Amino acid sequence: MADGGLTRNAAGIETALGILKQKFGERLQTGQSIREQHGHTTTWIANELPDGVVFARSTEEVAEVVKVCAAHRVPIIAYGTGTSLEGHVNAPLGGISLDLSQMDRVLAVNAGDLDCRVQPGVTREALNTHLRDQGLFFPIDPGANASLGGMAATRASGTNAVRYGTMRDNVISIEAVMADGRIIRTASRARKSSAGYDLTRLLVGSEGTLGIITELTLRLQGIPEAISAARCSFPSVSAASETVMAVIQYGLPVARIELLDAQMVGAVNRYSKLSLPETPLLLLEFHGSEAGVVEQAETFGALAEEFGGTGYEATTSLEERNRLWQARHDAYWAMLQIRPGCTAVATDVCVPISRLSEAVGAAEARATELGLQAPTVGHAGDGNFHATVLVDRDNPDERARAKEFVSWLNDLAISMDGTCTGEHGIGQGKRPYLVRELGAATIDTMAAIKRALDPENILNPGKILPE
Amino acid sequence: MADGGLTRNAAGIETALGILKQKFGERLQTGQSIREQHGHTTTWIANELPDGVVFARSTEEVAEVVKVCAAHRVPIIAYGTGTSLEGHVNAPLGGISLDLSQMDRVLAVNAGDLDCRVQPGVTREALNTHLRDQGLFFPIDPGANASLGGMAATRASGTNAVRYGTMRDNVISIEAVMADGRIIRTASRARKSSAGYDLTRLLVGSEGTLGIITELTLRLQGIPEAISAARCSFPSVSAASETVMAVIQYGLPVARIELLDAQMVGAVNRYSKLSLPETPLLLLEFHGSEAGVVEQAETFGALAEEFGGTGYEATTSLEERNRLWQARHDAYWAMLQIRPGCTAVATDVCVPISRLSEAVGAAEARATELGLQAPTVGHAGDGNFHATVLVDRDNPDERARAKEFVSWLNDLAISMDGTCTGEHGIGQGKRPYLVRELGAATIDTMAAIKRALDPENILNPGKILPE
Repeated sequence: MADGGLTRNAAGIETALGILKQKFGERLQTGQSIREQHGHTTTWIANELPDGVVFARSTEEVAEVVKVCAAHRVPIIAYGTGTSLEGHVNAPLGGISLDLSQMDRVLAVNAGDLDCRVQPGVTREALNTHLRDQGLFFPIDPGANASLGGMAATRASGTNAVRYGTMRDNVISIEAVMADGRIIRTASRARKSSAGYDLTRLLVGSEGTLGIITELTLRLQGIPEAISAARCSFPSVSAASETVMAVIQYGLPVARIELLDAQMVGAVNRYSKLSLPETPLLLLEFHGSEAGVVEQAETFGALAEEFGGTGYEATTSLEERNRLWQARHDAYWAMLQIRPGCTAVATDVCVPISRLSEAVGAAEARATELGLQAPTVGHAGDGNFHATVLVDRDNPDERARAKEFVSWLNDLAISMDGTCTGEHGIGQGKRPYLVRELGAATIDTMAAIKRALDPENILNPGKILPE
Repeated sequence: MADGGLTRNAAGIETALGILKQKFGERLQTGQSIREQHGHTTTWIANELPDGVVFARSTEEVAEVVKVCAAHRVPIIAYGTGTSLEGHVNAPLGGISLDLSQMDRVLAVNAGDLDCRVQPGVTREALNTHLRDQGLFFPIDPGANASLGGMAATRASGTNAVRYGTMRDNVISIEAVMADGRIIRTASRARKSSAGYDLTRLLVGSEGTLGIITELTLRLQGIPEAISAARCSFPSVSAASETVMAVIQYGLPVARIELLDAQMVGAVNRYSKLSLPETPLLLLEFHGSEAGVVEQAETFGALAEEFGGTGYEATTSLEERNRLWQARHDAYWAMLQIRPGCTAVATDVCVPISRLSEAVGAAEARATELGLQAPTVGHAGDGNFHATVLVDRDNPDERARAKEFVSWLNDLAISMDGTCTGEHGIGQGKRPYLVRELGAATIDTMAAIKRALDPENILNPGKILPE
């Protein structure tokens, strides 16, 4: 097994496995099925298995694993819930998958400061369950019930980033084990700081290639007094996008503003037995005071009307909110039912909002031209959208066309001064696009940092940076 | 001249000055007064002059200067407006002060995307003047009319960070010249991205030690439909702080929430002929819709009353807003008049808000104990406050006591899991505290990054990292 110019260090891996077996006993697993589960990519990227999986229970144990692997130059791939989408957990050179799911304690909640300290294996749903009776929540919602360590590592976001930001904005401080086994803490618990290089933000989004996150201090939000949901149909993607732009320019503090294209609305109609007009749809959520959310919903309604929005509905009742948002909640399953048994290949481009309409429209046209189905949902307030290509894995010609589509779409976003990845990360799949997006000098700078912090390239090798 | 173990490279400087003179003519200045101005620290840190000042007009010129300096191992200190507070622009090893104030063009405003692209020498006031007729503004307001490049380099913030964040949150992308003269661009113009290491955030707050910022893409805000200002007195710092905590927990989206301690209120009363009760004062600003700001101000009034707030006033009229906020606008000048001719030594600690009351109270008590006057203003919503020591420079004993106070206060904040610097940066003055705050392993990580990106240590040497 090899990855570009790199080669597998079979002897080192063998030695490290022996030492780790001594130290971790049954918490080192080498069975085929558990290794397959930990090298599973949930995408069309081929699975590449680690040689063993260690279940760590403390920062000290993580440091121990890293030191053993460092001594024998063995790759370590941090693993949370395995819900990443670009081959992040693959082990192209083998090595140790370091499973952090047992580090799942909420260590402290400081309600007065709206922050908390958690271990990396805590999932976002577990955290929100823990917080609920204190009237607090952690807003970042990438869809999957991912681990918070993994969400930080991929700089995840999701539907409410338009209001609450991404993991970049909501991690206050990180404890991490570096490639030499030393433990660092990146920042104090202060809400803001000018104390040296922003190592917090350097680790957020580093995909396990610079250090292993062993603890996070996160910003929390108070559960809003009131929530309102709304839904509105539009004659075209461009009418919907112009409405989104108007919302952002107006400064309306929408908590969520999601776009479904006509194809996706059609799929949801059939799957969920709805009767929405099969035209582009915006779904919204407003957070604030009772009076505030009503005012926001009214303001939105007026803006939407200007751009030809129809069928506008808004509500603050929980049951009705769920009804209005059903189209979004069911979108993924509805989409798979367009072609049962297909593989869904996610894309993740993000463009300046002024280019959103053009980008979504061009993607629809290009998919049709290539004979592909690629229904789309978008976090429209951020300019981030997922055209998901439905592919028959057993049809090589279709796979080739799908690859062409993905490549074309990434290049389109880059040409619009956008990015190939708004929230999924680079992993293995997007490495060629990173260079096209940011240029050789920028990638060389990233590579210099990687070499400085992980000179033996043991932390998640073969990810982010091109060979 | 030397800085720790580093020594001045007199021969290299001489050579570089000769080459730069050829290239830049009159735009290389070596006169005493201009060098003094560029090595002026505005604090009690001794001035250390550069050998020459180059006025650059383009990214290419910056790259040219860096290449010459790299070839001859000559320090380069980026210079914006010189309003930093921790000796950032000092030249402990001599070298070239690279003045970017002539790179002062607003290159693009994308109203539809709420972003703009500027050269680093544009000041925040110049940008806001440029934006005004488009209904947009750039919110970060550190007090001084600093350059945006300098604000990014020190991770500046100010009074409205509680709502709009700091420079960390408002820089989308950076173009920078690295130590080898190569030009990088850190990110696309997308509102969010998971594309590789967050070099944007690494450069924000790096104080010119990792690269020279030559262009910034910034996030903008729409000018709010309505602004309301409010003022409320409190019986104690702890009552005011508890109110602030309640505001944050409630999720009230205050745009500004500033604390003046009793001593500062007294100073303002005398300077501005006001008759405020000489007890702690909170000043607030709310941004939103007409109805929204009234609702916010009412909610705040009710919260403040619960904690013993008195004399509460709120208004949306511009004239009245200025009247209410006069105490804050005049605070700096009023403070200097407590002791005319004194030097004002700023501190900048930032603690978790739950510790704010204790920290401000302890600082007041410690100043009194040391026979010092240290009136305080705070960005209370962030837990960041400036107790400013008024020092007679010619009194060595008082200087010693002031130094003791500053050191004690930084350590106090660190002991509370806060930081020695919320917004001013480390520069020269706070280097010892950075190590105490984050520990040796973290500082070693920062130093490894510095060595990787600037192996010859030519970019603003002697700042941030300890020798």
